[in-house]
Amino acid sequence: MTKGLKIAVIGGGSSYTPEIVEGFIRRYDRLPIRELWLVDIEAGRQKLEIVGGLAKRMVAESGLPIEVRLTMDRRAAIEGADFVSTQMRVGLLEARKWDEHLPNGHGVIGQETTGPGGMMKALRTIPVLLDICRDIEELSPNAWLLNFTNPAGMVTEAITRYSKVRSIGLCNAPIGLQKWLSTKYDATPERIYTEFVGLNHLHWVTRVEVDGVNRLPELLDKREEYSGKNVPATEWDHEFLMSLGALPSYYLKYFYMQDAMLEEQLISLAKSGTRAEVVKKVEDELFKLYQDPDLKEKPKQLEQRGGAYYSEAAVNLMDSLYNDKRDIQTLNVANGRTLDFLPADACIEVNCVVTGQGPLALPVTRVPEQTKGLIQAVKTYERLAIEAAMTGDRGLALQAMTHHPLVPSVSVAKTLLNEMLEKNKLYLPNFYPSNR
Amino acid sequence: MTKGLKIAVIGGGSSYTPEIVEGFIRRYDRLPIRELWLVDIEAGRQKLEIVGGLAKRMVAESGLPIEVRLTMDRRAAIEGADFVSTQMRVGLLEARKWDEHLPNGHGVIGQETTGPGGMMKALRTIPVLLDICRDIEELSPNAWLLNFTNPAGMVTEAITRYSKVRSIGLCNAPIGLQKWLSTKYDATPERIYTEFVGLNHLHWVTRVEVDGVNRLPELLDKREEYSGKNVPATEWDHEFLMSLGALPSYYLKYFYMQDAMLEEQLISLAKSGTRAEVVKKVEDELFKLYQDPDLKEKPKQLEQRGGAYYSEAAVNLMDSLYNDKRDIQTLNVANGRTLDFLPADACIEVNCVVTGQGPLALPVTRVPEQTKGLIQAVKTYERLAIEAAMTGDRGLALQAMTHHPLVPSVSVAKTLLNEMLEKNKLYLPNFYPSNR
Amino acid sequence: MTKGLKIAVIGGGSSYTPEIVEGFIRRYDRLPIRELWLVDIEAGRQKLEIVGGLAKRMVAESGLPIEVRLTMDRRAAIEGADFVSTQMRVGLLEARKWDEHLPNGHGVIGQETTGPGGMMKALRTIPVLLDICRDIEELSPNAWLLNFTNPAGMVTEAITRYSKVRSIGLCNAPIGLQKWLSTKYDATPERIYTEFVGLNHLHWVTRVEVDGVNRLPELLDKREEYSGKNVPATEWDHEFLMSLGALPSYYLKYFYMQDAMLEEQLISLAKSGTRAEVVKKVEDELFKLYQDPDLKEKPKQLEQRGGAYYSEAAVNLMDSLYNDKRDIQTLNVANGRTLDFLPADACIEVNCVVTGQGPLALPVTRVPEQTKGLIQAVKTYERLAIEAAMTGDRGLALQAMTHHPLVPSVSVAKTLLNEMLEKNKLYLPNFYPSNR
Amino acid sequence: MTKGLKIAVIGGGSSYTPEIVEGFIRRYDRLPIRELWLVDIEAGRQKLEIVGGLAKRMVAESGLPIEVRLTMDRRAAIEGADFVSTQMRVGLLEARKWDEHLPNGHGVIGQETTGPGGMMKALRTIPVLLDICRDIEELSPNAWLLNFTNPAGMVTEAITRYSKVRSIGLCNAPIGLQKWLSTKYDATPERIYTEFVGLNHLHWVTRVEVDGVNRLPELLDKREEYSGKNVPATEWDHEFLMSLGALPSYYLKYFYMQDAMLEEQLISLAKSGTRAEVVKKVEDELFKLYQDPDLKEKPKQLEQRGGAYYSEAAVNLMDSLYNDKRDIQTLNVANGRTLDFLPADACIEVNCVVTGQGPLALPVTRVPEQTKGLIQAVKTYERLAIEAAMTGDRGLALQAMTHHPLVPSVSVAKTLLNEMLEKNKLYLPNFYPSNR
Repeated sequence: MTKGLKIAVIGGGSSYTPEIVEGFIRRYDRLPIRELWLVDIEAGRQKLEIVGGLAKRMVAESGLPIEVRLTMDRRAAIEGADFVSTQMRVGLLEARKWDEHLPNGHGVIGQETTGPGGMMKALRTIPVLLDICRDIEELSPNAWLLNFTNPAGMVTEAITRYSKVRSIGLCNAPIGLQKWLSTKYDATPERIYTEFVGLNHLHWVTRVEVDGVNRLPELLDKREEYSGKNVPATEWDHEFLMSLGALPSYYLKYFYMQDAMLEEQLISLAKSGTRAEVVKKVEDELFKLYQDPDLKEKPKQLEQRGGAYYSEAAVNLMDSLYNDKRDIQTLNVANGRTLDFLPADACIEVNCVVTGQGPLALPVTRVPEQTKGLIQAVKTYERLAIEAAMTGDRGLALQAMTHHPLVPSVSVAKTLLNEMLEKNKLYLPNFYPSNR
Repeated sequence: MTKGLKIAVIGGGSSYTPEIVEGFIRRYDRLPIRELWLVDIEAGRQKLEIVGGLAKRMVAESGLPIEVRLTMDRRAAIEGADFVSTQMRVGLLEARKWDEHLPNGHGVIGQETTGPGGMMKALRTIPVLLDICRDIEELSPNAWLLNFTNPAGMVTEAITRYSKVRSIGLCNAPIGLQKWLSTKYDATPERIYTEFVGLNHLHWVTRVEVDGVNRLPELLDKREEYSGKNVPATEWDHEFLMSLGALPSYYLKYFYMQDAMLEEQLISLAKSGTRAEVVKKVEDELFKLYQDPDLKEKPKQLEQRGGAYYSEAAVNLMDSLYNDKRDIQTLNVANGRTLDFLPADACIEVNCVVTGQGPLALPVTRVPEQTKGLIQAVKTYERLAIEAAMTGDRGLALQAMTHHPLVPSVSVAKTLLNEMLEKNKLYLPNFYPSNR
Repeated sequence: MTKGLKIAVIGGGSSYTPEIVEGFIRRYDRLPIRELWLVDIEAGRQKLEIVGGLAKRMVAESGLPIEVRLTMDRRAAIEGADFVSTQMRVGLLEARKWDEHLPNGHGVIGQETTGPGGMMKALRTIPVLLDICRDIEELSPNAWLLNFTNPAGMVTEAITRYSKVRSIGLCNAPIGLQKWLSTKYDATPERIYTEFVGLNHLHWVTRVEVDGVNRLPELLDKREEYSGKNVPATEWDHEFLMSLGALPSYYLKYFYMQDAMLEEQLISLAKSGTRAEVVKKVEDELFKLYQDPDLKEKPKQLEQRGGAYYSEAAVNLMDSLYNDKRDIQTLNVANGRTLDFLPADACIEVNCVVTGQGPLALPVTRVPEQTKGLIQAVKTYERLAIEAAMTGDRGLALQAMTHHPLVPSVSVAKTLLNEMLEKNKLYLPNFYPSNR
Repeated sequence: MTKGLKIAVIGGGSSYTPEIVEGFIRRYDRLPIRELWLVDIEAGRQKLEIVGGLAKRMVAESGLPIEVRLTMDRRAAIEGADFVSTQMRVGLLEARKWDEHLPNGHGVIGQETTGPGGMMKALRTIPVLLDICRDIEELSPNAWLLNFTNPAGMVTEAITRYSKVRSIGLCNAPIGLQKWLSTKYDATPERIYTEFVGLNHLHWVTRVEVDGVNRLPELLDKREEYSGKNVPATEWDHEFLMSLGALPSYYLKYFYMQDAMLEEQLISLAKSGTRAEVVKKVEDELFKLYQDPDLKEKPKQLEQRGGAYYSEAAVNLMDSLYNDKRDIQTLNVANGRTLDFLPADACIEVNCVVTGQGPLALPVTRVPEQTKGLIQAVKTYERLAIEAAMTGDRGLALQAMTHHPLVPSVSVAKTLLNEMLEKNKLYLPNFYPSNR
C-alpha cells in the first residue's frame, strides 16, 4: 500500500552510519526503503557530509532505488517518516570524557551509561529526545521511534512516560550474546533460546538452551562469557557464578567487582586517558577513511568501534515491525506486568514477540532472587534521574545520584553532583535556565 | 474463660528482663498474668538466677498473684503458654564482638543487625528460633510469639515462612520515635499520627501529624531527629533531607553515610573496642546491681542500656492482642499486599491495627520513590540469607553477602564470608554438620 | 483551632433530617457544630421549611449554640463547610416508582439500588452529585463529602474517579448488623469484630467474633440474619448457607433467590403498589407530624421508615474524622489493593480505620471463592453504568444493562433500556441534551 | 537425538481418530512418529478395533514407518510417551444426553460444556484425567499432555493445580475462527493477527488485523461471525455488538441470549431430541463407514461431525513444541499475570508463543470492561466445581451450581444438583464412595 518506506536517522553523522546503511541495502527485499534521511545538528555538519557521501556511494554501488538525503532540518526528515532512529551524543565525546573522568577523581566508577557519568548523559539527552518526540507526535504520529541513544533504557522510559510516541529501546548486548552463542555452538539463532531478566546494561541471562538442551550450567562452570569491547575483561569468581545461577551482563562487573573495575579504570586513565579519548582517536581515523571517494562499502575497521550488531539489531526490528514477523527479540520496553516488583511504566530489557502492532513482552519464567535488589536499586535511581532531567530539580538530582548503588554516600553524591552539573551546564537548560 | 495468662520469656536471663517484669506489673489490670516463666540455657543459668531473683522480689513487692518460674526446660515453659517472647543472643556478646570487628578489618561497616555482622547473627539465630517454633507448634499452637530477637525482621520472616506459629516482630525504634515526638510536641500519643515505610532497621517516616498538622517539613528543615543510643549521632545533610521528604531511620546512616560511619567505627574501635565490648561492661555492672537482695524494682541504670521501650512495646502489643484493642502499632509482619514491590511473605515494618485475631497491616499512603531501591536491595539480601540459614548452603550465603548494599564486591564478600563462618562455626550446625 | 464546624446537608428537606439533627445534638461534645445548613432545591422548598422548622425547635430545646440555616442556595451552604452530606432523590419518589415498576413488567427484579432500577437512579444522580463536587472543589476543597445517596457505592466511585473531592460512601446496613449482633449477644460494639467483603448492597460477612469467639458457624447454622425493612424476609436455604460459609447481605436475596423475590414483588405490586408508593404514604404522614409546632424531638414513627442508623453512621464517621479517632468502621471507599481482583479505583464496602486524614481500608483476611464472581459481575455493570452516566452514551448504557446479572439477555436489556430512559428523560440531560 | 516420537491417544476409539491420524501422516516430515498408541477402555473395545483398523490402513497407504498399536493397557501406552493426548467422554453420549436434557426440564440451558450439564461432565471427567496424570508422572514425566477433553479449560486447570504433568488445553474454536478469517480475506494465517480474551468457550475476540488493517469494526458492523456446528445460529443485536467492541464467541449466546437459546433448545428437544442423540446417529453412521476394509483415508463425512480442525490444532501444537517453533497459538494455559483479575493458576484461553519448553502466554493489549464480570463469574463457578470434583463435597457442588450465571437461584440449583448427581452416580465415585 505504501510506496516504499521513509526512514529518518537522527544523529546521521555518526561513525556508525555506514553499518546501518549496509543493513538497509542487504535487507531491501523485506524493507523497501524509498527515502533515507540522515539528520544532524549544525555542529555535526562536516561529519554528516563525510559519512553521508559514503552512504550515497554505498547505495549507488548497490543499484537500489533508495534516495539518501542529508539535512540539518530535523522536522523535514521526520515528516511522514515510517521509522525514526536516534543515535546521538549530546555534548559529543568531550562531555563523555568528563562523565568518565570526574567520578574517578572521587573514587567512583566513571562510566558513560551508568553511575554518575550515565546520569549526566541522561540529564543532557532526555530533554533533547523529548523535543524530537514533540516533532514526531506532530509530523509522523504513526512512526516507530527506535532509540539507540544511551542510556537507552532511561531514555526509552522517559519517552514512554512523557510522550505518545511509539518507541522501542535497542541495545547490541543481547544480539551480541546470541551471535556469540551461535558461533560457539555452531547453531543458527532459531535453535538457540535465551531469556533475559533486568534492565538495559543490567541484565542477567537466566536461560540458554541449544536444541532444547540447557547449556547454562556448563557456561557458568567454565566461566565462559560474552563481553563487549567497551568493558574490560575481568574474570568472574567461579563459586559466585555457580551460586548466582545466571550469566550476568558484562556491565554488571561495575557492580559486582566495583573495587577491581575502579582500579582498572584508574590505571587505564593514567596510561591512556578515558575511554572517551580512546574512542575519539578511533573515530578520527574512521572519518579519514570515509572521506576516500573510492570507498563504496563499510570499512572493516568500523567493527573495532564497539557497537557491533547495532545495525543488525535495528534492521531486524524494523523488518519484524513492518512485516508482522512475530519473532522473538530482546528489547527495551515498558514492563507492563512482566516483573512484578516494578511499575507498569518502568522500562525493562526483555524478550518480546515483535508483531506488526509492536512488541509484546514475554513472561519471564525464572527471576532469581539475587537479581531483584540491584534491578530495583538501579530503577529507583533511573526514575529519580528521569524526573530530575524533566524538571531540572536539583534536589531530585541529588536523590538520584545518592541512590545509585555505585555512589557510597550523600556527601560524595553532593560533591560529584555539583562538579558535574557545573561542567555540563551548557547542555542542561532545565538546570540552568538562564543559559537557554 | 482463661484463668489468667501464662507467659514464657525465652532468654529470660537477659539484663532487660526487669523492664518487662515492671511492664507486666503496671499493666496487670489489663493483662492478668498467672504464670511468668523465665527460660534460659545452661550457659545462662547464673544470670537467670540473678535476674529471676530480682523479678521475684519485684512481683512480691507489687502484691500481685503472679507466679514467677525459672527454668532451663524450654518445653515446660512453652506448654500451654498464651504468649512466648524471645530475647536471645546466640553466641553471646562474644559473637557480637566479631560481628562488629571482622567487617571493619576489611573496610566494611560492622554492625550487629545489618551488613555482614547482622547476617552472621541471622545465621546463628534463625535455626534456634525455628526449633522453638517446633515446640510452640506442638505445645501451645495458639500462642502468640513476640520476637524481639535481632535481626528481628529477618527472624520474623523466617518464622512466618517456615513455621505455622503466629508470630510478630517487635522493635523499639518506632515506639521510641513516638515517645520523642510526644515529648517534643507535648502531645499524648493519640494526638500524633506517624506512618512508616520499609523494613526493620531500614524504615523511613513518611508522615508526622500532630493534632492533624503536618510536622514533617519542619522536622526535616530543622534536621531534628530521634536516634537510638546504639548508633552514633551524625548530622544529616540539609539538602538531602529536604529532597528526601521523609525522616530516615537512624540505622539508615550506615547506608547514606557509609564513609563517615565507617570512619567513626574505626576510630571508636581503636579507642574503646567494639560496641559489644562496651555493652559487656554495662551488663556486668547491671548484674552486680541485680544481685542486691534489697533491690525490689528496676534500677534506673538499665535505661542507659539502649533497648529503651522494649518492654512497653511488648506489653502494649500483648494488651491489644488479648483485649482486641484495635489500636495502631508499628510492627514487623508479613507484607501481604502492602508494598506492591515486595512478595506477600516478606516481613516489613508497618503500621498495623492490632485486633484480637492479630495485626492487620494498614495501607501506606505514600511510598517515596527513593525508598524502593534500598528496601528491595536489603530484602534481597535478607531472603538469600534466610535461605542460607535454613539450608547451610555456602553458595547462598555468598550470594546473600555479595548482594548486601554495604558489601562492595564479590571478592570482599568471599573473604569476609570465609573468615566469619569459621569464627562462628560452633553456632552454625547447618554449615558445619560435623559440629552438631 | 477552628471555632466550631460548619456542616451542609444537601437534600436537607428529607424526612430523615430529624434523625441527623438528633445525632448532632447528642454528639455535640465531640463535634462542636457552629452552623448547620440544610439545603434543598426549589421543588423541595415546602418540605425543607417543615423539616427545617422542626430542626430549629430541636436545637432550641437542646440549648446548644448551633445555628440552623435553611437555604436554596447550595453554593452558600457549601462555602467553607467542614462536612457536606448528601441525601438526595433526583426525580423524587415518582421516579423510584418507575424504577421498581418497569422491570417487573418484563419479569425482572425492580429495585431502587440495583438492577435496571438502580441503574436508572445512578444515571439520574451521578451528574447532579458531580455538579455538587465542582462546587466543593471550588468553595471548600478540604471538606469531607459524606455520601448517603444511593446507589451509594456507584455514586462514591464516580466522585472518586471524576473529582478531587475527599468523599466517603455510607450505608446503614453494616451498622445495622453491628447493632443487631450487639443486642443478640448483649455485647458492646467494642467486643464484636465483623469483617465484610464486597460492594455496597452486595456484601458478605465473613467473620463474626464476640469476645474473640467465632460466632459465624452458629449464625449460619441457625439461619439467623439481620435484614433491613426494605427487603422482604425470605429464608435462606440451610445447606446453601453452611457451604457458603459467610452471612450474605439481605440484598443478595435478589441474586440468590431471584425467582422467589420476583414472585414476591409481583404479588406485592398487585396488592399495594411499588415500595416507592408505600414509602410515599409513610413520608406524607411524617411530614404531617413534623408540622406540629409543639414537636421538639425526633418522632418515634421515623424509625419505621427504613433508614435506621443512618444518622448514627454519619455522626460516628464525622466524629472519627474530626477527632482522629482511629476506630474501625465499614465504609465505601476506593479499593486500593484490598481486593486483588478489582481495580484500585473501584469503590468497595470494607472495614476501615478512620483517621484524621481519612479512612484506611483494612486488608480482608478471607475472601470466599464464592463471592468473587458476583462482585466482579456487579462491578462490571457499575463501571459501565458510571461511564454511561458521565457521557450519556446509549451504547454504554446498553452494555451496562445487559451485563447486570439480574438481566437475562440483550433483548430484555434493550427493551427495558428504551422504556426506562424515555420515562426518565427529564432527569437525564446527558442522554437528552435538547432537554437541558 | 530421539529416534522418533511415541504418541499415546487416550480415547483412541473416538470417531475423531482418523482426523488426527491424517494429521500425523501429513506432518511426518516435522513430527517423526515412531509409535502411535491408541488406548481405550474395555467398554470401547469394539470401536477401538474398528477405528484402529482404519488407522492402520491409512498408515500403510502412506508408506510411513509409523507403528500403530491398539491397547486397553493405558500404562503401557503412556510409558515413555513424548506426547499424550486425551479425547474422552466419561459416561459416553448417554451421560451427555442427560446433561442436556435435565436442565431443560427446569427452564435452564442444557449444554455439554457449560451450565449444569458442563458441570456434570467436569465432575465425571476430572478424577479420571487426574488418574491418567498419576500414570504420566510416573511413566513419562517429561511428556506433554494435550487435553482436548471438555470442559477443556476446567480439566486443564484441575491438571495444572493438582498434578505436575506439563499440560495444555486445546479447543478448535480459535483455529476455526482463524480458518474462517483466512478464507474470508483470502489471506494466509501469517497475515492475520487476532487476540483473544477470556476462558475456554467464553472468549471475546478483541483484535482482528489483516495485513495490519483493523477489520474488527467491519466484522461487528456487518455482524459477520464464525460459528461452530454445535451451537445454533442466532443473530447478534447490531447495537449490542457495536457497543461491545469485540466479537463474542458463539458460546456466549448461551449467556447473552439466554431466553432465545433456551426456547430454541426446547423446540429442538421436542422435535429431534437432545444434541447428544443427534450426534449418536452421526457417529453410528461413521463407524459403519470405518468398517469398510477398502477405506484407507479419512472419510469426508467426518467433517460434519462438529470437531473440525481439532486434529490440525493438535498437530500444530506438537510441531511447535517439538521443533521449538515459537509461533503464536491460542491455547488454554495457566493465567500467570496475564489477566490481572484472575489468580495465577486459573486456566485461561489466550495467545501463546509456543517454544520448545512450552507455551508462554502473551500479554493481552485490550480487555474490554464488559468481559470481566462474566469471566470472573464463570471462573468462580469453575473453581468451585473443580474443588467439588476433587473432593466429592456436595456443599461445594451446590455452591458451584448456584454461582453459575445460567442458574437463576439457589432453589433451582439444589433441585437440579440432586437430580443430576443421582443420574450420574455410577461415574461419580468421589460423591458416591460406596459405588467405587
